Amino acid sequence: MHCLLLLEFRLAVIQLQVTSVKADNLSRARRLVKEAADQGSKVVLLPEFFNSPYGPSFFSAYAERIPGESTQMLSDAAKEHKVYLVGGSIPEEDGGKLYNSCPVFGPDGDMILKHRKIHLFDIDVPGKIRFQESESLSPGNSLSMFETPFCKVGVGICYDMRFAELAQLYARKGCQLLVYPGAFNLTTGPAHWELLQRGRSAVDNQVYVATASPARDETASYVAWGHSSVVNPCCYHYSVYLGSPLNLSYLSSSPLQYLADIRQQLPITAQRRNDLYTVTSVQEG
Amino acid sequence: MHCLLLLEFRLAVIQLQVTSVKADNLSRARRLVKEAADQGSKVVLLPEFFNSPYGPSFFSAYAERIPGESTQMLSDAAKEHKVYLVGGSIPEEDGGKLYNSCPVFGPDGDMILKHRKIHLFDIDVPGKIRFQESESLSPGNSLSMFETPFCKVGVGICYDMRFAELAQLYARKGCQLLVYPGAFNLTTGPAHWELLQRGRSAVDNQVYVATASPARDETASYVAWGHSSVVNPCCYHYSVYLGSPLNLSYLSSSPLQYLADIRQQLPITAQRRNDLYTVTSVQEG
Repeated sequence: MHCLLLLEFRLAVIQLQVTSVKADNLSRARRLVKEAADQGSKVVLLPEFFNSPYGPSFFSAYAERIPGESTQMLSDAAKEHKVYLVGGSIPEEDGGKLYNSCPVFGPDGDMILKHRKIHLFDIDVPGKIRFQESESLSPGNSLSMFETPFCKVGVGICYDMRFAELAQLYARKGCQLLVYPGAFNLTTGPAHWELLQRGRSAVDNQVYVATASPARDETASYVAWGHSSVVNPCCYHYSVYLGSPLNLSYLSSSPLQYLADIRQQLPITAQRRNDLYTVTSVQEG
Repeated sequence: MHCLLLLEFRLAVIQLQVTSVKADNLSRARRLVKEAADQGSKVVLLPEFFNSPYGPSFFSAYAERIPGESTQMLSDAAKEHKVYLVGGSIPEEDGGKLYNSCPVFGPDGDMILKHRKIHLFDIDVPGKIRFQESESLSPGNSLSMFETPFCKVGVGICYDMRFAELAQLYARKGCQLLVYPGAFNLTTGPAHWELLQRGRSAVDNQVYVATASPARDETASYVAWGHSSVVNPCCYHYSVYLGSPLNLSYLSSSPLQYLADIRQQLPITAQRRNDLYTVTSVQEG
């Protein structure tokens, strides 16, 4: 686990150990949400597919409707511990289709939003990795943001992080924190995991970026890179290395003030040439 | 100097030593363009303010109209050596205003385009650096791309590199190489110079990115970071360290094929959700 004090709230990133036993995953996640809340966290982030091993052979077997067993646990945990709980992701079944979905719960236990992964992970690096998520999953079609008393938060899942426009739109719409539950692997992880987070945060958008990966399990069929991280808006990078949940606290006395300072010192937001180019959400017409 | 063989052409990046003697800067640049051409380079990149020290106290004194002395040298050199010559930048005077302008010449000596820096460098990091280019310079208002027989090239100057939309538009419009003459400094250089290039290339746009900085001169009033670089579309980074021009050749047997392979393996260009978001050039209406 990895905590960051953002002004008046602490964010916890849980790098969960995920096994093939769903009930164990759920109880382990719930225990760590409690631990995070006991440490003062107000927003808690779980990893992609926190209730299921990752891979097309598991999607269907572990899929649930929403609401269902896993989201009930998340709702109960959020309510009991009075936290905003970003439920990593779970395989969701709806209308005969499967989605990679991140449900977010408020401190009252209500589901605030459900982000379905927009960009499915279809890559083919010969001799290294082939993965075609779209053969099993359907994509979501919406941006997903939510308000907290602390700051506005934008949500993406894993491969969504490669698409700069999503982060640009979240930042333009006022998000100061972007969260990406994600399970990069041993090819894409060392190549781009940290770089993407640093690019999305300091350099392009001046926001905080937090990622939560499943813990690395070398015996799994899909080995997650781990390295759950938080990157600050000047792109300093704090990483949870390998393995199992850790208790690391990185405290800043006033991270949202720091963000404001950075945006004033290097005012790229105000300096953008909106007379020359624009990033727009097509959904808004 | 730093060379990269892009399919059938070699790119030279000249990390020029720049002094306060304009005539020396011009003759030194011309000699290195010849050297680059003698080594087989077809596209040659000079640094930002290659004919002048960097700083508001120099802009006016070194400014020229275009055409003028410096662009005549560039035209002559491009024609004599039959290269595409990206003339870094020079302070340009036009109609009583000053611009930071990059003129690009073709192998026939004609000026293909003139890119005026769009985003002026106005930053204020207390205790470290304050710089307000806009107090002396006026901004350009156009994107700048040119075709070569090898690939299409997009041009930005230094601080332009911080604005992701510019690179996104260049890439969407078919550029496979982005060039940024730039003079980052000892604060912004170690923080973001390499990260920006790697973000702009592999991660976001899958293009080659080349930057040319003045050589570092610790005695100058503005100390350039140096580290002229070429980054490939999988974000491997080749850097010219410190000091004076170097003769480094990084050869790839078929870099444009490599680019095509990367774009096929990790097809983010095709996977972008243009139904959800878009980056557009406002100038196109």
